[in-house]
Amino acid sequence: MEKDNKSITSREVDFAKWYTDVVMAARLASYTSVKGCIAIEPNGYAIWEKMQSILDKEFKKLGHVNCQMPLLIPEAMLNKEKELVEGFAPEVAWVTEGGSKKLEDRLCIRPTSETLFCDYYQSHVKSYRDLPMLYNQWCNVLRWEKETRPFLRSREFLWQEGHTIHATSEEAEKETKQMMDVYFNFFNDVLAIPSIRGMKTEKEKFSGAEYTLTNEALMYNGVALQACTSHYFGQKFSSAYDVKFTNKENKEEYVYQTSWGTTTRMIGALIMVHGDDYGLVLPPKIAPKQVVIVPIGKSEEIKDMAYNLRDNLLENNIDAYVDDSEKSPGFKFAEAEVKGIPVRIELGERDLKENKIVFARRDTREKIEKSSDIDIVSYVKELLDTIQKDMYERAKERRDKLTFEAHNLDDMKNILETQPGFIHAMWCGDKECEEKIKEIKGCKSRCIDDSLPKIDDKCVCCGRNAKHHVIWGIQY
Amino acid sequence: MEKDNKSITSREVDFAKWYTDVVMAARLASYTSVKGCIAIEPNGYAIWEKMQSILDKEFKKLGHVNCQMPLLIPEAMLNKEKELVEGFAPEVAWVTEGGSKKLEDRLCIRPTSETLFCDYYQSHVKSYRDLPMLYNQWCNVLRWEKETRPFLRSREFLWQEGHTIHATSEEAEKETKQMMDVYFNFFNDVLAIPSIRGMKTEKEKFSGAEYTLTNEALMYNGVALQACTSHYFGQKFSSAYDVKFTNKENKEEYVYQTSWGTTTRMIGALIMVHGDDYGLVLPPKIAPKQVVIVPIGKSEEIKDMAYNLRDNLLENNIDAYVDDSEKSPGFKFAEAEVKGIPVRIELGERDLKENKIVFARRDTREKIEKSSDIDIVSYVKELLDTIQKDMYERAKERRDKLTFEAHNLDDMKNILETQPGFIHAMWCGDKECEEKIKEIKGCKSRCIDDSLPKIDDKCVCCGRNAKHHVIWGIQY
Repeated sequence: MEKDNKSITSREVDFAKWYTDVVMAARLASYTSVKGCIAIEPNGYAIWEKMQSILDKEFKKLGHVNCQMPLLIPEAMLNKEKELVEGFAPEVAWVTEGGSKKLEDRLCIRPTSETLFCDYYQSHVKSYRDLPMLYNQWCNVLRWEKETRPFLRSREFLWQEGHTIHATSEEAEKETKQMMDVYFNFFNDVLAIPSIRGMKTEKEKFSGAEYTLTNEALMYNGVALQACTSHYFGQKFSSAYDVKFTNKENKEEYVYQTSWGTTTRMIGALIMVHGDDYGLVLPPKIAPKQVVIVPIGKSEEIKDMAYNLRDNLLENNIDAYVDDSEKSPGFKFAEAEVKGIPVRIELGERDLKENKIVFARRDTREKIEKSSDIDIVSYVKELLDTIQKDMYERAKERRDKLTFEAHNLDDMKNILETQPGFIHAMWCGDKECEEKIKEIKGCKSRCIDDSLPKIDDKCVCCGRNAKHHVIWGIQY
Repeated sequence: MEKDNKSITSREVDFAKWYTDVVMAARLASYTSVKGCIAIEPNGYAIWEKMQSILDKEFKKLGHVNCQMPLLIPEAMLNKEKELVEGFAPEVAWVTEGGSKKLEDRLCIRPTSETLFCDYYQSHVKSYRDLPMLYNQWCNVLRWEKETRPFLRSREFLWQEGHTIHATSEEAEKETKQMMDVYFNFFNDVLAIPSIRGMKTEKEKFSGAEYTLTNEALMYNGVALQACTSHYFGQKFSSAYDVKFTNKENKEEYVYQTSWGTTTRMIGALIMVHGDDYGLVLPPKIAPKQVVIVPIGKSEEIKDMAYNLRDNLLENNIDAYVDDSEKSPGFKFAEAEVKGIPVRIELGERDLKENKIVFARRDTREKIEKSSDIDIVSYVKELLDTIQKDMYERAKERRDKLTFEAHNLDDMKNILETQPGFIHAMWCGDKECEEKIKEIKGCKSRCIDDSLPKIDDKCVCCGRNAKHHVIWGIQY
């Protein structure tokens, strides 16, 4: 295949450079003069808006409501939950001056908002009749990262954080699992990213959680990305922040709590799972623009036809637009490709005379000639469905190809040094073994999934009795 | 009228206390342990979401796209535009520590993002072909206010800020005016708040703008609220931040710039224009929930009827919900009233036997009995339209009643000491006169509107020749 887009390094040559090139060429984000912080450009933000709108509907269907807590957290408030402080203290930013004065107490910019929600719930919950409270917020958070990469790791990022409180542990655990299912389905059905889910080990769980469920996806290069997490807190935060309620037996009890979130990282996952050397490739369900119509030549008739077709598609809930700018058709094609528009429709004077319309799939770059008499709307719908399905299948094939089994440390080393991926291996449950495995190229446990069949009786590392089926991998 | 809601101070007794009581009783927002910052609760946030969704559609129709710039601004970047720094320096918060280290350069939390957009545009604009760039962002900003009040003035607030750049001053000025029109129409048509628009005086304009257009509304107590502004910057920022483009004549030129914004303050305006002693009163077009259906009694049949009616209303794009909780009907009525739900439908067993349904309007608290045979959906639609229209008319009547003319300083004093409102008076254009008028109860020029007929030849303050027709008032 010839390569039109000269500004993108080949994915096979330098994956890291390819990634940044795609981000820049597709105008998803750009660097700013603010160290470690990106500007999310309109093309990138439109993807985030579509993610928000789909997830927000799911959250609301399940009874969640949105709210907005403050950006700043007083130091004393943060300090109440020991594990949380220890987990986040090294990576927060502190406000120490306001209104030209030095502040008596430092305020940190939220790295996450458990403390603020606890502070709120503490003064708003009295009885079991007030429960559950199912709150969520869409906002920005800040973590003082040293190494940053657009979308994957930046000092400021956008996310949603759900924080719920319940009258019983059963209900709260059900919520923790349910929200992980929402994420899992979103990844599979909407983003066309086959992901795995399971429980984080003690070492990898969220500071302050009883346990953490995670959704993990595998990028094209075999590196894993933790994309969403759902935490069960039990009464750890509620006891630290004194969030009590009167239960049905008229006794005071601490509430049971969860939190769950996902971030603009998902845009990074989309790029690294589906993108190619021509730029971004968007699954139709998450593409802000699904179809570009390119009228070729200067005929007013064809231009009118293009706009009529667009209106027809829009009326049928297909996001289409016409590119009738003064650029050359080749330039327009390349531009739509780099942005990942799933379907291109070419309306050429000569083709139309011969009753032909050309459709092009972004995912396969295949051109399809059709008679201009077909029902275009139905055909485009079908094509979008096919692309969505095919993209998922291809991503799954790739993931399966990069999924391995290891029975001892040598297996692990071989895999990680040849071609990393998801590595299934049994584990004794000991932190020391986790740390030893981490010495191999920084490989970490992605998640525990004991619903999978045992692949061995012994720990991949120490050879003692195995307790858990763990999926391991190198991570972003 | 009897008063059900004991927790709300009467509006006539203590307007300030009434306001806070409504905010709390309707659960729109609550205080937090973070000084000067509020938590926007689900009832308040749902109003903001509806405002966002309506305005965002309008912005996009006019070709604007959303993006997201960083939260933090390096001090050196902020310092480039002198007027902006002077305007905002006293009220910013500074981050001086990050990742456990003292920072070499302070970062301020954005009080507004002109600098960040200039930084972005500077590296992304080359030719007139790239123009206009019509960007907007929805985000949080921070200003270190001393006195704060929920929604009206808080250290952190949510807003949208549009920042556009253009190839000519004509285009940029057109944009400045157009966006003010969008706000003006939103206030009148959606929020049912009759507002006035005009130009700010030199003293009151935005730091760094060539001029500022403003939309001002009058609260029930006669105090004015500046609700949205639209600024024309000309080349002031683009020359300070070196944002150049090559024009059609192939010459380098600085871009022409605008910015425009509105905030969660609008929720405060809704409360203070429409609210009453029973709580919030929401115009149907901005109410997240427009209709509450209350089944009275325990009959399963009536409950089913309530849910069927709700589904029927939802299908017809009317936001309805059923309150079938275990509370008493009286309690449910009061709760829906305090939240400002425009229409209540009571389904009572006895009424239904007599073929009657009771509708209640929140704005007038009027109960309307109708035969249960009517087409309920059509009737509710009609009722919602009537409420929207009547609320606007009542607000306009009130505003007109509180609109005065002043011909000299004694007039001004009399009005401001008896019953403040919008005061029309002529002005010589001199800052000294503005300052002298401000001595009367802090009265400020709201806006200049020279399209209005002159009401005098002389300045209301100094008696010299008048240049402008100004509307004055005390402000929040």
